[in-house]
Amino acid sequence: MTEVSRRRLFAYSGASLAAGAAAGAGLVSVAQAVEQPADDGAVPFFGAHQSGIATPVQDRLHFAAFDVVTDDRDRLIRMLKEWTAAGAALTGGRPYGSAAGGLPESPPDDTGEALGLPPARLTLTVGFGPTLFEKDGKDRFGLKARRPAALADLPHFPGDALEPDRSGGDICVQACADDPQVAVHAIRNLARIGFGVVAVRWSQLGFGKTSSTTPDQQTPRNMFGFKDGTRNISGDDGKALDQHVWASAKDGAPWMGGGSYVVVRRIRMHIETWDRTSLKEQQDTFGRTKGEGNPYGAEHEHDPVPLAKLPADSHVRLAHPDSNGGVRILRRGYSFTDGSDGLGRLDAGLFFIAYQRDPRKQFVALQNRLAGSDHMNQYVQHVGSGVFACPPGPRKGGYWGETLFA
Amino acid sequence: MTEVSRRRLFAYSGASLAAGAAAGAGLVSVAQAVEQPADDGAVPFFGAHQSGIATPVQDRLHFAAFDVVTDDRDRLIRMLKEWTAAGAALTGGRPYGSAAGGLPESPPDDTGEALGLPPARLTLTVGFGPTLFEKDGKDRFGLKARRPAALADLPHFPGDALEPDRSGGDICVQACADDPQVAVHAIRNLARIGFGVVAVRWSQLGFGKTSSTTPDQQTPRNMFGFKDGTRNISGDDGKALDQHVWASAKDGAPWMGGGSYVVVRRIRMHIETWDRTSLKEQQDTFGRTKGEGNPYGAEHEHDPVPLAKLPADSHVRLAHPDSNGGVRILRRGYSFTDGSDGLGRLDAGLFFIAYQRDPRKQFVALQNRLAGSDHMNQYVQHVGSGVFACPPGPRKGGYWGETLFA
Ligand code: HEM
Ligand code: HEM
Repeated sequence: MTEVSRRRLFAYSGASLAAGAAAGAGLVSVAQAVEQPADDGAVPFFGAHQSGIATPVQDRLHFAAFDVVTDDRDRLIRMLKEWTAAGAALTGGRPYGSAAGGLPESPPDDTGEALGLPPARLTLTVGFGPTLFEKDGKDRFGLKARRPAALADLPHFPGDALEPDRSGGDICVQACADDPQVAVHAIRNLARIGFGVVAVRWSQLGFGKTSSTTPDQQTPRNMFGFKDGTRNISGDDGKALDQHVWASAKDGAPWMGGGSYVVVRRIRMHIETWDRTSLKEQQDTFGRTKGEGNPYGAEHEHDPVPLAKLPADSHVRLAHPDSNGGVRILRRGYSFTDGSDGLGRLDAGLFFIAYQRDPRKQFVALQNRLAGSDHMNQYVQHVGSGVFACPPGPRKGGYWGETLFA
Repeated sequence: MTEVSRRRLFAYSGASLAAGAAAGAGLVSVAQAVEQPADDGAVPFFGAHQSGIATPVQDRLHFAAFDVVTDDRDRLIRMLKEWTAAGAALTGGRPYGSAAGGLPESPPDDTGEALGLPPARLTLTVGFGPTLFEKDGKDRFGLKARRPAALADLPHFPGDALEPDRSGGDICVQACADDPQVAVHAIRNLARIGFGVVAVRWSQLGFGKTSSTTPDQQTPRNMFGFKDGTRNISGDDGKALDQHVWASAKDGAPWMGGGSYVVVRRIRMHIETWDRTSLKEQQDTFGRTKGEGNPYGAEHEHDPVPLAKLPADSHVRLAHPDSNGGVRILRRGYSFTDGSDGLGRLDAGLFFIAYQRDPRKQFVALQNRLAGSDHMNQYVQHVGSGVFACPPGPRKGGYWGETLFA
């Protein structure tokens, strides 16, 4: 049964698994999680690294931060095992357990709105926040000693206007897919499986990828109308990934070997103000042209950046590795538009996501510089924030976070 | 220049139009609005009916309701003319005026984030709310006498919990496209063109169409996991459209001939509660199965509905034309997920959109019945609402609402 795709589900009665899995809260044994079909756009789920980091960026995002609402370590581990089984099924394009063919007296295991949809390159990437290791001085799950030094709390940066209910969280899940219904479905079903163990603290939908990790393809544009991701770490540049993105077991926290650290920032863009500025001011802000995206002083988008030709306070000059002792990050952000605020302005911006090996040396170093001097600060404000340690990818028969809890 | 697609824009310097159009507030003469290219997925913009109604439902929605913030009728008309020129350009996959190649001292006319993207079947559908005709007893624009009787204020329905800042509006624009970046870009640029004349009152993004108007294709599923749109008016059923969707010049408001009335409802779905109910309860709620979508008492999704076999309080039985003297509507709604509320529940549901010839006889009649008896009411709540008169399609050289203001 776990072999059928959602497309072919209706041929299947669903009774066997539904019977094995107690209604609604059924624990599907991890052994049942099987390999993905290679067709239909499924991204492999098991492996040394979690998918959704080096994976070519999908079109849509649903990011959720959860609070753990139990003190019971075993229940938490049990949930992570169930999540892993569900993750394997959903990323493979299969429902989690029964969806429509189960026992009539039971709630279906899967909520059903992705039935008939292909996998859409769904990836699920899990991370653990600082508060999972210690909260209000309390070692909640006996994990305090295992907190990586790299998972330091982010400092306050100049200009930050962080909203507590868009920040933090004990566990995060980044769901990316080419179809938003598939990404939303995945988060919803994880939340449902986790009922009583975790509760959604906040979540964010992203509708337009802003950072390509596939430099050969057309670079997407952010809400300022500029190409974004031109000089990003490429998802197939193994050397750069090893150097800047994947944590090593020797970095200090052995359980994080093959994992990565993610920093997320909900960055509101004042697009009404931006839209009234001149083309020159816009281009000076980045040190790149709007049309082609070439850096000042060079001709084409992908030409090397002649740093000295860019305005001293331009975003690209300040963020470039040559201005930061070689520091690089893997950006994987999305645009968002969440209706409008009370003043008739679009609540729009960039949900910034960056993966790296050590946030203290990468995001924090960069953002300290940018928060102080970036000309772009006139047009943006950071309103949400989170930092999470993303463990290595689950192995077959294992589960998300196994190296941490082992 | 208006012939180039966004794809080919960079070959073009932009100076001629940017010079003709005063910086940022430039009025592009309506004559400049030219025909769409037939390729690249552009939907024709001019015609007897507005596009976005009978058009096969696109994947994504950005719906915006605007307040008119001026008393100046001429400025309002001027803006509608500009909107029309912009609408013709954007739906054709072209930027509105200059985007990146204009004068460096001027803000670009177009905000640029859709540069390089195809038209993505973008449609823009404009409607006029009751308050445009009369607000607080005031005949704001000399339109009071032209208000169609069919554009009556919606009554309060049992169970309504309408939020004022998600309801009403003087003018609405429904932007639908297969790429959300294209839909968001369109609304943003209309808002920008309208600066000083209109301000966004509220807006809603929809990520998954819930109602197909193309019965031969796979029916999409809503957030309850059920197929939605099975028995909808088909976009190519000219007879049904004439009877149920297009207003006739003889209906009482001659300027509305070829137009239609839209009712929108932001319907929150209590999906956490829903997800804990049994498959039987879920199916009884609709009188259809979850997997195949066949009505109770019939075998296949598209079989005729044997009404007597459906639970008396089931949604389909109550909403079916045979229970309502033949009344039908054209549904064109979208699923939404707007993060989560303070209680850790997803703020998710259905942004219901229905087109019809006379809301008094169609939506209001149906909703009166549903609000009273529909079993589904246990799982949904209407929190936003609007009703708008959508004029006929603009003719070449004309503008949105010309028949109203003429
Ligand atoms: C709304 C916020 C932001 C916007 C609109 C934005 C936009 C851009 C754009 C248009 C580029 C040039 C194209 C490219 O190489 O990708 C760029 C480059 C870059 N940005 Fe940002 N960015 C934002 C926030 C940040 C933040 C918070 C950081 C890190 C703290 C950051 C780090 C970088 C880096 C490292 C580069 C590449 C520089 C280079 O190697 O040339 N950005 N950004
Ligand atoms: C969250 C709210 C709603 C949900 C989840 C929902 C769902 C459904 C579903 C699953 C069907 C059966 C499949 C189909 O024929 O499309 C259906 C049919 C229908 N619904 Fe709804 N609906 C909602 C609200 C409404 C409202 C507010 C109205 C009108 C006032 C309405 C009018 C109809 C009509 C006319 C039909 C077709 C009935 C028939 O001809 O058999 N629905 N709806």
